Amino acid sequence: MNGLLTDLYELTMAAGYFEAGKAEEKATFELTIRRLPEHRNYVIAAGLPQVVDYLLNLSFSAEEIDYLRGLPQFRGVSGAFFDYLRSFRFTGDLFAVPEGTPLFAGEPALGIRAPIIEAQIPETYLLAAITFPTLIASKAARSVEAAAGRPVVEFGTRRAHTAEAGVLGARAAFIGGCAGTSNTLAGFRYGIPVMGTAAHSWVMSFPGELEAFRQLQRVLGESTVQLIDTYDPIEGARRAAQAGRPMWGVRLDSGDHLGVSRQVRAILDEAGLRDAKIMASGDLDEYRIRDLLAAGAPIDAFGVGTQLATSGDAPSMGAIYKLVEVDIHGIKRFTAKFSEDKISVPGAKQVFRDVGRDVIARSGECGKGEALLRPVILGGRLVEPLPALEQARRRAADSLAALAPSLRQLEVAEPRAVIYSRELRMLIEQTRRNLLA
Amino acid sequence: MNGLLTDLYELTMAAGYFEAGKAEEKATFELTIRRLPEHRNYVIAAGLPQVVDYLLNLSFSAEEIDYLRGLPQFRGVSGAFFDYLRSFRFTGDLFAVPEGTPLFAGEPALGIRAPIIEAQIPETYLLAAITFPTLIASKAARSVEAAAGRPVVEFGTRRAHTAEAGVLGARAAFIGGCAGTSNTLAGFRYGIPVMGTAAHSWVMSFPGELEAFRQLQRVLGESTVQLIDTYDPIEGARRAAQAGRPMWGVRLDSGDHLGVSRQVRAILDEAGLRDAKIMASGDLDEYRIRDLLAAGAPIDAFGVGTQLATSGDAPSMGAIYKLVEVDIHGIKRFTAKFSEDKISVPGAKQVFRDVGRDVIARSGECGKGEALLRPVILGGRLVEPLPALEQARRRAADSLAALAPSLRQLEVAEPRAVIYSRELRMLIEQTRRNLLA
Repeated sequence: MNGLLTDLYELTMAAGYFEAGKAEEKATFELTIRRLPEHRNYVIAAGLPQVVDYLLNLSFSAEEIDYLRGLPQFRGVSGAFFDYLRSFRFTGDLFAVPEGTPLFAGEPALGIRAPIIEAQIPETYLLAAITFPTLIASKAARSVEAAAGRPVVEFGTRRAHTAEAGVLGARAAFIGGCAGTSNTLAGFRYGIPVMGTAAHSWVMSFPGELEAFRQLQRVLGESTVQLIDTYDPIEGARRAAQAGRPMWGVRLDSGDHLGVSRQVRAILDEAGLRDAKIMASGDLDEYRIRDLLAAGAPIDAFGVGTQLATSGDAPSMGAIYKLVEVDIHGIKRFTAKFSEDKISVPGAKQVFRDVGRDVIARSGECGKGEALLRPVILGGRLVEPLPALEQARRRAADSLAALAPSLRQLEVAEPRAVIYSRELRMLIEQTRRNLLA
Repeated sequence: MNGLLTDLYELTMAAGYFEAGKAEEKATFELTIRRLPEHRNYVIAAGLPQVVDYLLNLSFSAEEIDYLRGLPQFRGVSGAFFDYLRSFRFTGDLFAVPEGTPLFAGEPALGIRAPIIEAQIPETYLLAAITFPTLIASKAARSVEAAAGRPVVEFGTRRAHTAEAGVLGARAAFIGGCAGTSNTLAGFRYGIPVMGTAAHSWVMSFPGELEAFRQLQRVLGESTVQLIDTYDPIEGARRAAQAGRPMWGVRLDSGDHLGVSRQVRAILDEAGLRDAKIMASGDLDEYRIRDLLAAGAPIDAFGVGTQLATSGDAPSMGAIYKLVEVDIHGIKRFTAKFSEDKISVPGAKQVFRDVGRDVIARSGECGKGEALLRPVILGGRLVEPLPALEQARRRAADSLAALAPSLRQLEVAEPRAVIYSRELRMLIEQTRRNLLA
C-alpha cells in the first residue's frame, strides 16, 4: 500500500537486483548523520515509530504494480518481478537508536539488514521519516534550553510543510522538550498537552476589545489568555486588566517584546494581577528567547512557530542511507563509497556512548559504555513495544543534561569526540585496498 | 474526520463564537501573501486541490468530539456546542486564484465567506496547505529559469518534511516547471513523469563497476543512466563508455561538476557516444545551475533535491489568514488589525492583473484586466472541476513569460506594482477611523 512512496530508482534497482539474481543476497544499509545541521552541536533522534509503521506495512497493491508495469523504465523487466512485488513484505531486521538519543556527526541512527531489495526500497521513506523529526526535536531542545525553565509551546503547524508535518513536528518538538503544542490532532493522537485560546480574529469579530476579552473569559475561565496586540498592546493590556480575573494571563504576538512586556507587567501588577502571566509569540526562535531573557524581559512562557516547525535556520540535514555490507550465502563483502567529497564507512556498526566520547565500532565488538543501536524489528517482527513518547522525551532531557555544557549552548562548540574503534579502522583500510585493487 | 487537524485556538474560538451567539454571523477571511519569501520576486500559487478536499470533508468524529470535551479549555462549554460539532459541515464559499498564478506581496491567494465558525476552523490547515506548495512551485520555477531550457527533475523526497510533503512537493515542483520527479507515488497519483535509475548502492552491490553498469543496461535499456561517481567519476565515465549503448547517459552526483562534466563529455565523445547525455545532481539549486551553465558546463539535465524540496533558502513565507469583514444579518462591519508591525486590510477583495501592474480592489468593483480570485466552492459545493495539473503548469509558464524579465531573474528586482483601488483606500481609512473611535 505504501510501496510507491519512494524514489523510482529504488524500484528500478529492485527490478535490477531481481533480474541479476541478487534477490537472496542479504544487505546491510545504515542511515547515518553525515554532517550535523548548521549551527548545531547535536541532533535528537526522532521518528522511529513512523519507520516501524512503514516497514511493517510495506506492500504493493495490484493497482500500484500495474502502474509500475506501464512505466517505460520497466519495459524490459520480467513478469516474475511483478509477481514478487505482489507478495512483497519486509522480512528483515531493524536496529535503531531510541528516540530522544542525542547523535553527532558520523553516527548511524539506524541499520537495516534484509534481502537487498527489501533493504533498498525503504531508503527514501526512512531518510524523510528520520531527518525531519530529528531536525525539529533538535530545534525544540535549543529553544527549551534558551527559555531556561520557562515553558516553550510549539505553535508552528500553519508554517509546517503540509499539515501532517505539523502533527509529526509537534510530536518531535515534545520529545525535544516543548511543554505542549497548538496542534489539536497531535494532542488527540499522541496525548501531547494542547494549548491555545484565541487569535486576533476573535478580538476583531467583536466591536470592542473589552467585550471580546470578557466573552473569552466566559467560555475559557482560568484557561483564558488574552491576546492584547490586535490594535495597541498597551491599550490591550489595560483592557485585559479591566476584564480582570479569571485568566491565565496575556499574550503578546508582535512588536517590541522586551519594552512592551515590561509595560504590560507593570499594568497587570498595578491592577493587582500579579499572578497573571505573560506569554510571548511571533517570530521567536532560540536566539530571540535567549536575548529577551538576558535583557530581563518579564516573559513567563514562549510560543514558537515558524522557526521551530520548519527548523528555519537548518531546514535540512546531511543524512545518508548507504550499503555497508553484502552477505552472499554466508560470505560477506564490505562496501563503501570513496568518491571525492562523499565517503561512507563499510561494515555493520554499533555506537558505544562512553563518558565524554563515543566510539563507533563494528557490530560484533564489545565496547565500553551504552550500546546505542538496539534491535527493533527482527525477521520482520517487532521485538517489543516501542518506548512511550514520554520516555523518549525523558531520554532526551536526561541525555542532554549529561552532555558537556558547551554542547548545549546555542553557539557551535568544540564537537564531541566521536572515534572509530581499532577494528573498524582496520576494516576501512582493508575495504579501501580491496576496492582500489 | 479532519476537524482536529487545526490549532486548538480555532476550536476554543469556535466554542466562544457559539456561546456568544455569533454562530449565525457570516465572516470573510482572506489568506494573503504578506511578504514575499526572501530572495523572491514572485511566488506561484499552488495547493488548491488540497484546500478543496479539506473543506469538502471537514467534520468531527464522535471520538474527536469526546477528546475535545475532555480538555480543560472546554470545561465551561455547553453540550449544545458539541452537538453542533457532530453535524458540522463547511457550507460556505471559497474564492481562490487558480494554481499556477504568480502572486506578489499583499495579494490574497484565497478568500472564505462562511458562518464565522466554519471560516475560522480552517485557518491552520489552509495556511499550511497553500504556503508549502507555493514555496516549492516558486523554487522550482527559479530552477527551471536557471536551467534555460534543460530539464530539471525534482529529486528531493528524502529531504522533504515527511514523505507526504515529498509527494505534494513533487506536484508543486511540476506546476513550477519541473520536467518530472523521482517520487513514484507522485507519478501514480498525479500522472507526473517519474525518473530515476540507480543509486550508489547499485554499483556497490556488485564487485566491479563495469559489471554493475552492464547489469543495469540489461534491465533498463535506453532508460539507463549510469551513476559514475561511486569511486572515481573519471574512471566511472570510462567504464560507462566501455559498457556503451544502450543508455540515456550518465549522472554525476558529487564533486566539481564543471571540471568533471567537461572531462566526462570528452570521454563519451571519444567513445562515439555523442548522443549520451550528462545529468548533474548533488547539492544543486538555481544559483549553482546558473553558474555551471554560465561557465559552459556540458550538462544536459539537472536533478535538484534538498534545496527544492525544502525551499532551502526560504523554507517559510509570511502568509496570513485574517478576518476582513463580518456580516450580521445583512449589516456589514469591516475589520482590520492595526498593531505596529502587522497590519491587515479590511473588506473582501479582488485582484485585477493588468499590463505591468496589479490593482487590489473591493470585491464588488469592476476593474481592468484579469480578475484573479474565482469562485471555487459556493454554498459548500464545488462549482466546477478544478483545472487539471497540466493546466496549472501551463498557466505558470505562460504567466511567467508575460512578466517583466527583471522579475524572472534570480536576484531581487524592483517589485511589481501592486496598488489599492480608490474604493479600497477609502475603506481602509474609514475602518481605521472607526476602530480608533
